[in-house]
Amino acid sequence: MFGRFVRQYSTSKNIINVNELIVEKTKTPFQKYTDKTKLVFGKQFSDHMIEVPWTKEEGWGTPKISGYHNLSIPPSASVLHYALECFEGMKAYKDSNGKIRLFRPDQNMNRFLNSAKRICLPEFNKEAVVELIKKLCIMDKDWIPEGKGYSLYLRPTLIATQNSLGVGASNSALMFVIASPVGPYYPEGFKPVKLIADDQYVRAWAGGSGAFKLGSNYAPTIFPQLEAAKKGYSQVLWLLNDYVTEVGTMNMFVYWKNAQGEKELITPPLGDGTILPGVTRDSILKLAQKWGEFKITEKNFTMTELAKAIKEGRVLEAFGAGTAAIVSPIESISYKGENYNIPIDTSLGCGPLTKKISESIMSIQYGETDSDWSVVID
Amino acid sequence: MFGRFVRQYSTSKNIINVNELIVEKTKTPFQKYTDKTKLVFGKQFSDHMIEVPWTKEEGWGTPKISGYHNLSIPPSASVLHYALECFEGMKAYKDSNGKIRLFRPDQNMNRFLNSAKRICLPEFNKEAVVELIKKLCIMDKDWIPEGKGYSLYLRPTLIATQNSLGVGASNSALMFVIASPVGPYYPEGFKPVKLIADDQYVRAWAGGSGAFKLGSNYAPTIFPQLEAAKKGYSQVLWLLNDYVTEVGTMNMFVYWKNAQGEKELITPPLGDGTILPGVTRDSILKLAQKWGEFKITEKNFTMTELAKAIKEGRVLEAFGAGTAAIVSPIESISYKGENYNIPIDTSLGCGPLTKKISESIMSIQYGETDSDWSVVID
Repeated sequence: MFGRFVRQYSTSKNIINVNELIVEKTKTPFQKYTDKTKLVFGKQFSDHMIEVPWTKEEGWGTPKISGYHNLSIPPSASVLHYALECFEGMKAYKDSNGKIRLFRPDQNMNRFLNSAKRICLPEFNKEAVVELIKKLCIMDKDWIPEGKGYSLYLRPTLIATQNSLGVGASNSALMFVIASPVGPYYPEGFKPVKLIADDQYVRAWAGGSGAFKLGSNYAPTIFPQLEAAKKGYSQVLWLLNDYVTEVGTMNMFVYWKNAQGEKELITPPLGDGTILPGVTRDSILKLAQKWGEFKITEKNFTMTELAKAIKEGRVLEAFGAGTAAIVSPIESISYKGENYNIPIDTSLGCGPLTKKISESIMSIQYGETDSDWSVVID
Repeated sequence: MFGRFVRQYSTSKNIINVNELIVEKTKTPFQKYTDKTKLVFGKQFSDHMIEVPWTKEEGWGTPKISGYHNLSIPPSASVLHYALECFEGMKAYKDSNGKIRLFRPDQNMNRFLNSAKRICLPEFNKEAVVELIKKLCIMDKDWIPEGKGYSLYLRPTLIATQNSLGVGASNSALMFVIASPVGPYYPEGFKPVKLIADDQYVRAWAGGSGAFKLGSNYAPTIFPQLEAAKKGYSQVLWLLNDYVTEVGTMNMFVYWKNAQGEKELITPPLGDGTILPGVTRDSILKLAQKWGEFKITEKNFTMTELAKAIKEGRVLEAFGAGTAAIVSPIESISYKGENYNIPIDTSLGCGPLTKKISESIMSIQYGETDSDWSVVID
């Protein structure tokens, strides 16, 4: 009878029922970091994790929060062979009043759902996942380091667990969320990066899946990244037929005087499916629109155009944008054997617009500026 | 003292030491299939599996064969987030004398190693993996179904197990091999397939990683494949700027009278990194060279050219080539809303060349024709 009652909530197979959540507090808590300034990205994890299993027959099962633990995965599971996996990156912040805040979690959930659909993983009710994440944040609130720039990095992940080697849609899956306390990307102030604009390796192409946060977009980028590092560059500036696409794992922005002499913030458009729709990318565009101080353009531009503009002294600033760093200033781009230097205000470690964007977004994330982008967890 | 002795074998970190192999026979053998004709690809697994762990500090650890079991994987492992995974597909055959045979395992190992390098997974001594696979085949020899067309499908896999969310080369990995008894791809004779030549989705791109057997090449293909199936087509014929690349998960071959009126077997070349170097592909090219009956060409050709040739009645046969089916005859290709029919000898279910290739390769695989491509396991 109770079974029937519980089932009533799950009339649709694509619904995660937060009311059914089972919480098992860990009996073996981790030793917590003693010095938050020594945190390394994604190396230490908080005490608990979320898991929600799914099967084609039953739909989403009972959500569970329990101690961080290894997963038991069949060696034939599709995730291990055909990369049927997608993920999100988001953060929980502790504001100066000790309140926990998320930043535009709806945006992450929109993308998470789109990624899942692209690789035929199950759909889900996005609000439920945000609710579960809030519960995890509350449970592990002592794992959210205090202070501006510090946060609890959250990693929602969805993997195909089907125990079969056929290449096809999975009949079972697991959604999980783990959390890792992280410090500021630039603990000692901005440190601008040197890029190499690579045309030997291509990150994404029209008709591919670069616009989705799939594991498959990352594996092939590591070798080129290591090659760049060997040559002394921090990141690869990804090109596609000479068009600038992304930088490392971030969206690319240039602030320049365009060919018409107008001050313009430019970033490649989302249209052709090669660009990840970054939450930070979108936030920067919306903030800049509100400021109304310069032209804002989502348009393709080539590395040849960018190199020319740098040579002509028209490039004011350039930066990558993403959840980990918010913005990452660029000081030079190596292209076809030549080095192109971009202005950096040495007192700031970046340009003034880069600084303004960083501070404006941080101010919202930590609740200093009122915005519905910042979602307080009660 | 003994520890020191064992270490002497592993002077290099990239060496798997087969002499150290630990074998633990399963105590809970699976219930074996009772009707081999009902086997479904990759659904049932044999009793045992191979595992070899690797760490950056220690190199390859002790190889082990034990009962098929779930793997314990950290939820932060790179394989689950960034698709750091590659694999191989190969088969063990039982010949009419009951001897077990592999088909060109060195070719699979060459590709396996190349795939590993492409995603910064550890290198290994290829002969050792073949030796381990032989031992697994002997141990699970009762799982190799008898009869022409039947085999034990082997799936060597290499995954990144690093417990960290940083995007980079993994500091730990696991190689494993599982085995699945399979029946003939066409149990009732060839069944030619209908394709849709798709230009909306692109499988691989110059500068991408289509030439390697990475999990990341497969996830994005499943959605287009399901879309094709909904429209009534068996497989996608992958195009890149109208160039024919691959078909489903197979290499593409066309046997036609070319524009010069010569009989020619044509397949896209490996040069630009978009085509998987298939073992069956290579075997077909080498066999056809030996036969010397027609021109053999590795060259790009467009779907427009192919459609024109079909219209002009110049296409004699077309087929996909891969380990699972050897050859898969194509009866039609839908392209830009038009249907192009390719001749099929209805008594054979394919064309005569397709049939000849299939029989020649099978004959080698099952030891009926002498060839150093067939490796007997003693």
